[in-house]
Amino acid sequence: MSQHPFDAAIALQARGEDRWQGATSPAFANFIGPFGGVTAAQAINGVLQHPQRLGEPVALTVNFAAALADGPFDVIARPVRTNRSTQHWTVAIEQQGQTVVTATAITAVRRATWQTVEARMPEVPPPLEVPRPAGKPGVEWVHRYDLRFIEGPVPAAWDGKDTGASRTRLWVRDAPERPLDFASLTAMADIFFPRMWLRRAAFVPAGTVSMTVYFHAGEAQLRETGTGHLLGQAQGQGFGAGYFDHGGQLWNQAGTLLATTHQVVYYKE
Amino acid sequence: MSQHPFDAAIALQARGEDRWQGATSPAFANFIGPFGGVTAAQAINGVLQHPQRLGEPVALTVNFAAALADGPFDVIARPVRTNRSTQHWTVAIEQQGQTVVTATAITAVRRATWQTVEARMPEVPPPLEVPRPAGKPGVEWVHRYDLRFIEGPVPAAWDGKDTGASRTRLWVRDAPERPLDFASLTAMADIFFPRMWLRRAAFVPAGTVSMTVYFHAGEAQLRETGTGHLLGQAQGQGFGAGYFDHGGQLWNQAGTLLATTHQVVYYKE
Repeated sequence: MSQHPFDAAIALQARGEDRWQGATSPAFANFIGPFGGVTAAQAINGVLQHPQRLGEPVALTVNFAAALADGPFDVIARPVRTNRSTQHWTVAIEQQGQTVVTATAITAVRRATWQTVEARMPEVPPPLEVPRPAGKPGVEWVHRYDLRFIEGPVPAAWDGKDTGASRTRLWVRDAPERPLDFASLTAMADIFFPRMWLRRAAFVPAGTVSMTVYFHAGEAQLRETGTGHLLGQAQGQGFGAGYFDHGGQLWNQAGTLLATTHQVVYYKE
Repeated sequence: MSQHPFDAAIALQARGEDRWQGATSPAFANFIGPFGGVTAAQAINGVLQHPQRLGEPVALTVNFAAALADGPFDVIARPVRTNRSTQHWTVAIEQQGQTVVTATAITAVRRATWQTVEARMPEVPPPLEVPRPAGKPGVEWVHRYDLRFIEGPVPAAWDGKDTGASRTRLWVRDAPERPLDFASLTAMADIFFPRMWLRRAAFVPAGTVSMTVYFHAGEAQLRETGTGHLLGQAQGQGFGAGYFDHGGQLWNQAGTLLATTHQVVYYKE
């Protein structure tokens, strides 16, 4: 049985204390370097595989300091503070001794408490009633996802008219199907194409500089989700002086909020 | 002329390359340790004062690994990657050699581009028409801010009834007045009391574990804002298994989006 392309892409080999080696995957190639979601997944994977890890991911921030070059890299994941039920991590990805990613993560042993979803899943048609886009994706990594846009697809025409809003709603799952885990949920938090493209209908150079994921799902919610589609939503907030940000949410089909996410993105115009 | 309490609280003394000493300030005391917003301001202050800094803050993530003990601490701010127009920082705050805060920041030389505010300021009465709360704050740091709640104040009664929503809108500025800068904007991004208190009308133990700020304002927008009030808005998204998150925005009175922010908060219940 051959390995799933996502598992192959995020695989890490131990290289000593707090250090792993990974490599970029042609299957997840973007315009320049790999899909940032896979890089973020590799960063959290260093934490997930660490023998001293306490609990499950609660928060992850990944800063993209430089485009990764094709080839190997080191992931350095260090537990810098371990409390009774929480643990704080610093993570770096290095190539040829240069920092290409900085990151921080928090893991925690979580206990059942009162719970609610205030950011409720919007009412949308089920995934199999939403067609997949007809066009052929321009970059390789998009082929690794089953994407079904309900609102705010990639513009069909780049006419540069301000569309007034930059909200996308889409169904997403791995292609081929793969049971959801913390690494793939992290990658899917970066599934949204640049809000600047949507707001301006302009195909401008853009790249995420920092992404944060808050994990609302634990192992139980991941298992319940299995290989089902996630509903992703993202909307821009402020655009100016070369950067915009967006906030987003990911729910499973049952309406469970699995993760919230934000990112700030460089753009040229 | 005596120093403003916020300037006194965030003051840092150089202690060698990449290292500064600061101290907690009784004027910003919280229930346990200092107001997290001041700690975040101290973290970004290490970056702001660094002789190698390139540009202005774009993103900051601060992780609260432990409550700060009253007294001195070290801020270690390192530029780990400097590109042509962006710079990536790792920051730590240490007490007695132990990590109490981890952080990352991005600074950048920003250039004028197409701009818009998609997260528009809601229509609210002007600050001087909104009364200040009648009660006496239970913690010292709250006295350092002029807070005027338009929606979602601290509940008057802790009756434990689910209120169905956790949105707060408030006017805020330093008390006494102080011209806005990146450090005070960072602190004000943490002005929102725990959304769990509002959603559940329950006074439960709660503490921020990670906060991110995206800076939409540059020096020009800070100057335009001056000592004016900011409108802050925050709303919870998901609550469960001991953690909730919120997303928020800060505008000046002219409706300029100065910063967006989000945080994940531990709670006990």
